[in-house]
Amino acid sequence: MQFHHHGYVSGDPRIKPAAGVGINRPEELPEEVDVLIVGSGPAGMLTAAQLSQFPDITTRIVERRGGRLEIGQADGIQARSVETFQAFGFAEAITAEAYRITEMAFWRPDTENPQNIVRGGRALDDTVGISEFPHLIVNQARVLDYFAEVAANSPTRLTPDFGWEFQNLEVTEEGEYPVKVTLVRSAGEDTGTTRIVHAKYVVGADGARSKVRSAIGCTMAGDQANHAWGVMDVLASTDFPDIRLKCAIQSHDGGSILLIPREGGHLFRMYVDLGVVPEGDNGAVRKTSIEQITEQANQIIHPYKLEVRNVAWSSVYEVGHRLTDRFDDVLPEDIGTRNPRVFITGDACHTHSAKAGQGMNVSMQDGFNIGWKLAHVLEGRSPESLLATYSAERQIVAKNLIDFDKEWSTLMAKKPEEFENPSDLEDFYVRTAEFPAGFMTEYAPSMLTGTPTHQELATGFPLGKRFKSAMTSRVCDTNPMHLGHHATADGRWRIYVFADPAAPGAESPVAELAQWLATSTESPLAATPQGMDLDAWFDVKVIYQQKHEDIDINAVPSVFKPEVGPFKLTEYEKVYGVVEDNDIFDVRGLSRDGVMVVVRPDQYVANVLPLSATDELAEFFAQIHAELPKKATA
Amino acid sequence: MQFHHHGYVSGDPRIKPAAGVGINRPEELPEEVDVLIVGSGPAGMLTAAQLSQFPDITTRIVERRGGRLEIGQADGIQARSVETFQAFGFAEAITAEAYRITEMAFWRPDTENPQNIVRGGRALDDTVGISEFPHLIVNQARVLDYFAEVAANSPTRLTPDFGWEFQNLEVTEEGEYPVKVTLVRSAGEDTGTTRIVHAKYVVGADGARSKVRSAIGCTMAGDQANHAWGVMDVLASTDFPDIRLKCAIQSHDGGSILLIPREGGHLFRMYVDLGVVPEGDNGAVRKTSIEQITEQANQIIHPYKLEVRNVAWSSVYEVGHRLTDRFDDVLPEDIGTRNPRVFITGDACHTHSAKAGQGMNVSMQDGFNIGWKLAHVLEGRSPESLLATYSAERQIVAKNLIDFDKEWSTLMAKKPEEFENPSDLEDFYVRTAEFPAGFMTEYAPSMLTGTPTHQELATGFPLGKRFKSAMTSRVCDTNPMHLGHHATADGRWRIYVFADPAAPGAESPVAELAQWLATSTESPLAATPQGMDLDAWFDVKVIYQQKHEDIDINAVPSVFKPEVGPFKLTEYEKVYGVVEDNDIFDVRGLSRDGVMVVVRPDQYVANVLPLSATDELAEFFAQIHAELPKKATA
Ligand SMILES: Cc1cc2nc3c(=O)[nH]c(=O)nc-3n(C[C@H](O)[C@H](O)[C@H](O)COP(=O)(O)OP(=O)(O)OC[C@H]3O[C@@H](n4cnc5c(N)ncnc54)[C@H](O)[C@@H]3O)c2cc1C
Ligand SMILES: Cc1cc2nc3c(=O)[nH]c(=O)nc-3n(C[C@H](O)[C@H](O)[C@H](O)COP(=O)(O)OP(=O)(O)OC[C@H]3O[C@@H](n4cnc5c(N)ncnc54)[C@H](O)[C@@H]3O)c2cc1C
Repeated sequence: MQFHHHGYVSGDPRIKPAAGVGINRPEELPEEVDVLIVGSGPAGMLTAAQLSQFPDITTRIVERRGGRLEIGQADGIQARSVETFQAFGFAEAITAEAYRITEMAFWRPDTENPQNIVRGGRALDDTVGISEFPHLIVNQARVLDYFAEVAANSPTRLTPDFGWEFQNLEVTEEGEYPVKVTLVRSAGEDTGTTRIVHAKYVVGADGARSKVRSAIGCTMAGDQANHAWGVMDVLASTDFPDIRLKCAIQSHDGGSILLIPREGGHLFRMYVDLGVVPEGDNGAVRKTSIEQITEQANQIIHPYKLEVRNVAWSSVYEVGHRLTDRFDDVLPEDIGTRNPRVFITGDACHTHSAKAGQGMNVSMQDGFNIGWKLAHVLEGRSPESLLATYSAERQIVAKNLIDFDKEWSTLMAKKPEEFENPSDLEDFYVRTAEFPAGFMTEYAPSMLTGTPTHQELATGFPLGKRFKSAMTSRVCDTNPMHLGHHATADGRWRIYVFADPAAPGAESPVAELAQWLATSTESPLAATPQGMDLDAWFDVKVIYQQKHEDIDINAVPSVFKPEVGPFKLTEYEKVYGVVEDNDIFDVRGLSRDGVMVVVRPDQYVANVLPLSATDELAEFFAQIHAELPKKATA
Repeated sequence: MQFHHHGYVSGDPRIKPAAGVGINRPEELPEEVDVLIVGSGPAGMLTAAQLSQFPDITTRIVERRGGRLEIGQADGIQARSVETFQAFGFAEAITAEAYRITEMAFWRPDTENPQNIVRGGRALDDTVGISEFPHLIVNQARVLDYFAEVAANSPTRLTPDFGWEFQNLEVTEEGEYPVKVTLVRSAGEDTGTTRIVHAKYVVGADGARSKVRSAIGCTMAGDQANHAWGVMDVLASTDFPDIRLKCAIQSHDGGSILLIPREGGHLFRMYVDLGVVPEGDNGAVRKTSIEQITEQANQIIHPYKLEVRNVAWSSVYEVGHRLTDRFDDVLPEDIGTRNPRVFITGDACHTHSAKAGQGMNVSMQDGFNIGWKLAHVLEGRSPESLLATYSAERQIVAKNLIDFDKEWSTLMAKKPEEFENPSDLEDFYVRTAEFPAGFMTEYAPSMLTGTPTHQELATGFPLGKRFKSAMTSRVCDTNPMHLGHHATADGRWRIYVFADPAAPGAESPVAELAQWLATSTESPLAATPQGMDLDAWFDVKVIYQQKHEDIDINAVPSVFKPEVGPFKLTEYEKVYGVVEDNDIFDVRGLSRDGVMVVVRPDQYVANVLPLSATDELAEFFAQIHAELPKKATA
């Protein structure tokens, strides 16, 4: 965590000094806003937390509910989400209060006595080191709380506007704030009064029944039928021995349970499978009582017993596999001729079963994707065309997810005798572990993702996938550090310069690149406005092949040690060496001739280039930067 | 973190439900309090945070200052302090914002060009794995903030009473609240008005010029002369390459600097040695200006240069090696005939140089020692005689510290040519590393510390030293866990039962012990009042020699799985197995026949006993428990 470079501030460094629109933020919803977010679920709150970091952008988030979410909804947190929380500064805090999954157990009917279940197997949650972050279970409400804290402590002091329901919008294509939004007060004394807000952009994060989606004429397509689960968060007494373990439990008659132990050591959630809801059900399934659910749970876990002592939350969760074909307001025929003004994210554009624990996670990644793009366009860093990449990138991710989820749900719903091999379920779980952990997203080449021409220089940083951190040693303070953990959600592009074998001071490709980055008018850094710190838009780090004690920090080129803040203090935390026995060059398959890895603000690898590829680097950013003229291909 | 066993509570689990005296806590200082703490420095705040956990104890902490500390004072945080923060729940949060020491550099005059300094060596901060916790640097103000947060979020909702200065006290020996304390308002509109508060106990944590100390007739003895340092917390520009590393810098003319990089990546502290202050100095040294300090710093670091750009704090810190001979109000001649009512802690009873970074750390351990003892006596768990152990235990710790500190300061003050070996300083630092890390405290046998009769059964848990955690595997959720990290500052005694080789279910010494603990009237657990959870006073954990997957939790004796809370939920988090490749039995030298390790609420090992030693266990607690009759030695 870096702070104090603007002078010593006594107090919590997580509370940033108010700046820009945060200095006198109006309590009341203003008439004009840069971004209006609808819905304060995971997708909306992440988008808000991201945008709140930009002092000059007015973002408001309206929520139909009168206050914060208190109970229920999702609770599975993939490692990728925890990685994202790390970028927002609360991974450790939420981990400390969450349940951590290290193993999962699979229970099935005893072949001798099929009316009894027996533990069939255990699977480690992450056998291959998919991530250094854990797989957690914690209520959605707490996730939202943490994002709310980040936003409230941000320079813009953003807090949700509760008690406002979105009704409709119109994209007028007129003036600076072309989206005209109608809101209705949904809580408080003035319930029912309407209000018009004019926005530059609208993000619909209003869940599965999204009105923003309807307003832009999107429809959800997919299976007609929903799958229903009886869900209960309960405190109970039981002799089922794995009650504190995530379990998939299948009984002899096909009834099955997904057991999710919860935060705090006592609470747990059970998803009792209620099967596919027939089309003409008309909500009958939703009348399944908690007693019925408990009764069925007891039948499934026979010979064990469950006595519910306290119900924290229960619901019949009904969901189908549905997806919209676009995530913004640009009709297929208009792609390329106009840029989007309205976006939909999360459950508003895709829904899927709860079994793979994806809903909240994928929704947050939607928010992470759109957040920085809106900020860069609003700040004038990037052309409006950047916004078209949101739908293009995320729609396919959602589609892949739904395909995966169907496979997983089908497997989970199978009767034991239908499996060729009793460990099929377990095998599938282990084999596809990268998926539910949230790391299968791989963006295709586009204006934001280079072509894999030089991928062999950095095999461990696949283009289009999220930058997977590894250990390095920070030279200035000799601290061993995860290189990627400095990639906070500050909206900056990152260029990791992995050096050639020369030590700093010697003539070398890195020294030449450093010179070019710092001085060339074609350098992406040249786009940084006058008066800002050299690293305000680009965080450029260097990783030498030496150990920290063999690196003379005084000899390191200045682009890696910019002067920052009003006192022009040297920023020392961008210079790294390798750690013994865990050399990042080996661990991530990096060329010993050196390589540049360009990473997006949302942590995805955008480009992999040789150290000498200054032309290609300039060209790549020419498309992304608003101001720089496009350079012809060399 | 465990919660929700009283039912689901939506919100931050760190904010505990208000209870007892916290439900309608008066804003105003009441006339009668159980404990009055004077001074909100590290010693006072830890004591307050500890006492705040007890719903039925009224604790108030008065502070002369009008508000929180903002800058200055100490900043070195030993691993033992971070371990303590872990017990209070904020180790991770403070670590995230602190500077972390992994190496220290030693600079000395270049033998060729003595006017220049050169890096003489580097030492790893913790070469031998003294602790799993880091060594940190962060301002004292932040440490106090975190303790304040713990106290404010506690069941008793304790917050400091700012703007009250302690004037005097009188131990009347009358009534329930025998200590009569006079306070004067030191801030606010009513400055100067006095107030009498009657307390059961008073803790003087009012720093080096303690008035509580004077009031109980203690005097500080030690060196007449003080040592002075010019201290500055600054933002600066420099070409000194190790500016982000802790450094001991010795120049050719004997001038020396201790450089402490600070939190946030830019700020650093320099202690410039101003030497021993002659007795008749009359404060002249305190007039040393920041310019003079900077000037001297520049001379010492030649050929490097330092340009200060912003001064956050500076001071001339003058301190001697001083110690009182008692830490409470009981005169030597009265020991054994009356119990103490007034205690002094921290700088009020011992002062030492800043060089070993001890002041804040040892002061906090004073507070950790007295806190639970006061609570146990006030709650009637323990006899008043328990309170006499505070002075007995902590005075000797302070004495040892001062002896160590003298040696270290003398070494640091030596001119390079006075060393036999140029690496003497470095060698001493590495050799004695356990001391400054805070782990050399070893309480002698007493009513709280058993005799080492059975020490060989657990060589890695020396009696009287703090319980050094090791990895285990929690059976219920298969999480690998540091066993000791469950030892939160909840005032409970802990009994770790390391099992014999039998698995649960079989007849075994552990099964017998479990039976005795749960049912015998002589069991320490029998002291737990009716109606409370079985683990309210004693946290009894079992660690089997098996791996978690080989332990049947249903077969584990019930004393290790008590039913807790209003819903009588099974507490599953007390049953552990070993982790592969890091077996706690090997790592801590535990007997394979099993062993009981008894640990105090402040984390020190109180007793090591064979599994069969129920008599010795009963006898040990007979002295500590107020109610149980003393049992004759078997
Ligand atoms: C009742 C319920 C139970 C669920 N249970 C599970 C579960 O057991 N397991 C699981 O994995 N997932 C579950 N989910 C799904 C999971 O919570 C979602 O996948 C995830 O929350 C998606 O995040 P989101 O931000 O896209 O939408 P949501 O979290 O649904 O957030 C949408 C927000 O928009 C608000 N909103 C809606 N319409 C408007 C409007 N017109 N104007 C203003 N605000 C509006 C809503 O109040 C809500 O706060 C459940 C969802 C619901 C609603
Ligand atoms: C100005 C200063 C600079 C220091 N610099 C360093 C340093 O550079 N390095 C280092 O290692 N250590 C330094 N120390 C020492 C270090 O801060 C102490 O060792 C540590 O704070 C001891 O903790 P404590 O709780 O015992 O006392 P303190 O932290 O001194 O706390 C005592 C508290 O009691 C309050 N108080 C005092 N008298 C009364 C009264 N009559 N009534 C009510 N409240 C009262 C004070 O305002 C203060 O808040 C410094 C101390 C001071 C005062």
